[in-house]
Amino acid sequence: MTTAPETSGNWIDEHHNGVRYGLKGRVLVEEQSDFQRITVIDSQRYGKGLLLDGCWMTAEHQERHYHESLVHPALCTAAAIERVLVIGGGDGGTARECLRHPGVKHLDLVEIDGRVVDLSQEHLPSIGGGCWNDPRFHLRVADGIAWAAEAEDASYDVVLVDGSDPTGPAEGLFNRAFFSNCCRILKPGGVFATQSESPEAFRQVHIDMVKLIRELFGHADPLYGWVPMYPSGWWSWTFAAKDGPRYLTVQSERAAAVAEGCAIWSPRWQQGAFNTIPAFIERELNP
Amino acid sequence: MTTAPETSGNWIDEHHNGVRYGLKGRVLVEEQSDFQRITVIDSQRYGKGLLLDGCWMTAEHQERHYHESLVHPALCTAAAIERVLVIGGGDGGTARECLRHPGVKHLDLVEIDGRVVDLSQEHLPSIGGGCWNDPRFHLRVADGIAWAAEAEDASYDVVLVDGSDPTGPAEGLFNRAFFSNCCRILKPGGVFATQSESPEAFRQVHIDMVKLIRELFGHADPLYGWVPMYPSGWWSWTFAAKDGPRYLTVQSERAAAVAEGCAIWSPRWQQGAFNTIPAFIERELNP
Repeated sequence: MTTAPETSGNWIDEHHNGVRYGLKGRVLVEEQSDFQRITVIDSQRYGKGLLLDGCWMTAEHQERHYHESLVHPALCTAAAIERVLVIGGGDGGTARECLRHPGVKHLDLVEIDGRVVDLSQEHLPSIGGGCWNDPRFHLRVADGIAWAAEAEDASYDVVLVDGSDPTGPAEGLFNRAFFSNCCRILKPGGVFATQSESPEAFRQVHIDMVKLIRELFGHADPLYGWVPMYPSGWWSWTFAAKDGPRYLTVQSERAAAVAEGCAIWSPRWQQGAFNTIPAFIERELNP
Repeated sequence: MTTAPETSGNWIDEHHNGVRYGLKGRVLVEEQSDFQRITVIDSQRYGKGLLLDGCWMTAEHQERHYHESLVHPALCTAAAIERVLVIGGGDGGTARECLRHPGVKHLDLVEIDGRVVDLSQEHLPSIGGGCWNDPRFHLRVADGIAWAAEAEDASYDVVLVDGSDPTGPAEGLFNRAFFSNCCRILKPGGVFATQSESPEAFRQVHIDMVKLIRELFGHADPLYGWVPMYPSGWWSWTFAAKDGPRYLTVQSERAAAVAEGCAIWSPRWQQGAFNTIPAFIERELNP
């Protein structure tokens, strides 16, 4: 299934369950790749932006909420961060934030759709920033599900999943087989993180994901933040580890290396964001 | 200035700086009161909803984020809660949450626009719930700015401001004279709270409000949460006290009396929500 965003007049909208979120602007690119419908727009409010299958992914002036929330709680808490795997994230924003950590020596970015990379490099160069030319960065245009299945046991310190919603090419990034492989390929002391949808717009998907990841890794907790352009604006990322909830404890030296360049993330913000679990979710996850 | 919401086909939208947030549904009431344009809709996603001057105010199935976030951090932390003043809040939701606290003996709700009360009672009865008939509840259809100016010194334990954006009739709820009166009429050990806009969609208004309230009361901090239907979905409420940041410390007996009936709020959530201050705001507020 591929879907173009709704457009009317100067508005480009994502529609979700009787709600629409629109940006005023114009469509720059609208194409069908081998995997999905890709749309690049130029918006008045957030600069250039990307949609996949009609859903907002990122935009120049609103990408830091998402990328900082996914990256720094993992990179500041894993025992080591030498080898990092990013699955998805073809816009480069997740890789860019990871590579701000001097401890990262090798980063594999596995993006299934090379056209997302091409169009991001052409139209959204600020999102990837210097990542594309960083010698530590390795682009693999490949299926992230297969990559996780084939990678060696205990081969990554950090595994980050930066995928779209559980329909279309990202569907397999939400199931037991995939998360089991992510757990298997994580080194001892490693941290796994994935975007885990909106607790409001995708409530059941969110709850089921956290429960499944907790079952497989032993320890997992959601962190709540904001991505104003996504359905409801309220978003979550889930962090997991095998040797205890180490994702809760920030290493201050790592934090000091990146904090000044952050718009959203700080150790204080992270501590808060793990606690702003709404009562209706806490009753389901921690009864 | 009064503005009707934008409607096209089955969509009712709030427009804000090149962004639109729309709900699919139909308009039930559209009228001009003495103060503002009032719109009541029936939406597919959130049930019946209210707009004032084209801005989303509340909806049946999405009102608890706002009301629980404003009420319980104040009512669970003030030294006493016998006398409560609510300015605005004509839909009744704030009063309803306050009156769940058995310690509240007298609540004045001062709403400038009686038509908001009438239409809320008629179309959104679940939002006010039992408040309208509670013997502790006193409806005052009057100007809240004048009410605060004329109230006696130290006459309320808690003062809550549940107003709309700083244009139209709510404009005077955002300035030094008004906040000074709120401070003056608060009893020792009292807590003041107001919605304080979105740190994203109304960044400068938000920062200026927190700074001003902090200057006047001595202690003030923003708390961050979500109102999916508001611009950006990311919203804030600011809490203030004269005798120290007492709004940070929840009284467990008060919490126990209301927690079970909450969708969002819990002591843990509150603690988190005071800490999820984004780095770009913290640098301005706590340099």
